[in-house]
Amino acid sequence: MSQYAPPIERLIKELARFPGIGEKTAARLANFILHESIADARRLAESIMEVKERIHLCRTCFNLTEQDLCAICANPARDREVICIVQDPDALIAIETTGEYRGAYHVLHGALAPLDGIGPDDLHLQELLSRIEGHTVREVIIATNPDVHGESTALLISKILQNKSVTISRIAMGVPMGGDLKYTDRMTLGKAMEFRRGM
Amino acid sequence: MSQYAPPIERLIKELARFPGIGEKTAARLANFILHESIADARRLAESIMEVKERIHLCRTCFNLTEQDLCAICANPARDREVICIVQDPDALIAIETTGEYRGAYHVLHGALAPLDGIGPDDLHLQELLSRIEGHTVREVIIATNPDVHGESTALLISKILQNKSVTISRIAMGVPMGGDLKYTDRMTLGKAMEFRRGM
Repeated sequence: MSQYAPPIERLIKELARFPGIGEKTAARLANFILHESIADARRLAESIMEVKERIHLCRTCFNLTEQDLCAICANPARDREVICIVQDPDALIAIETTGEYRGAYHVLHGALAPLDGIGPDDLHLQELLSRIEGHTVREVIIATNPDVHGESTALLISKILQNKSVTISRIAMGVPMGGDLKYTDRMTLGKAMEFRRGM
Repeated sequence: MSQYAPPIERLIKELARFPGIGEKTAARLANFILHESIADARRLAESIMEVKERIHLCRTCFNLTEQDLCAICANPARDREVICIVQDPDALIAIETTGEYRGAYHVLHGALAPLDGIGPDDLHLQELLSRIEGHTVREVIIATNPDVHGESTALLISKILQNKSVTISRIAMGVPMGGDLKYTDRMTLGKAMEFRRGM
């Protein structure tokens, strides 16, 4: 690396901090920046700082937003009596793109992972409880990831909410659309059987 | 994409301009920036601008540098009577890492590509000629890429220099055809330097 001029070396080092970006890819990205116009580079640098300076968490649901309330919480057409709990803003976006859901969200920004030091206090659960206690909420849909962390988080939330007058549901786990049963792992198939419903 | 807050969407758009970075990867990188500290993000943004503001071309060889002369041209231990011609600064770095070469360089910043509008006037060839005419140069090693553009550039340079009292050599085709110098391992590159022959 010592062959590069120091500013280039610094940029490569910064770019290589990205997940999944190694030294070679970082050098390629730095090379792209070196060859683009200064206006383009400035737009990139500014958009990085803009995101850090303007984006914060929605006061109600902890989604990412520029405002006090996120676009979903601020939308009067959304059903605030249904709250879908997700681990992160990307999961929220994935659900939004289905167009199937018109309720509100609650973003945990993580899942239980004791070995990584992530416990119940790190998941905005107190704020979830306040939302349910302070307002009419019919249903809580737990849409944490279908893995060990997401499952234990779902279990924890269902325990916390068990004495509240609210329906608690978990998104279905099953065979993905377009999938093939013979290539589906048995955990998924087992869940698909468990979540079956009458037709 | 419309699910993202506008600053996030802008950042994703900027990141997706990188070669080989699609929308999904750009969203993942944006997500990383969102979650890192503001100090880390600022260091990234600043290193982007630092590279644009401080890096320019070496007065002599057109390598990237912060100074008037690059570290190689400024190094009195380098043999200035041998000039290695490369297409881009990454190729120079690749050759430097072999440790096999102690001469100077000349960076073309491209190769002949008539269809892309890159002709002889775009390759700092006049400056190469001045270097050879103004100083004692024993040998010119043409280390353009082993592909159609690099080969025609090599041919052009050997024609331009044929009446000069300088040995013209081409790096050996130890490097695989169709490849790119910056992605070649240093053993192969070292061999290619060692096996160069006159043209």
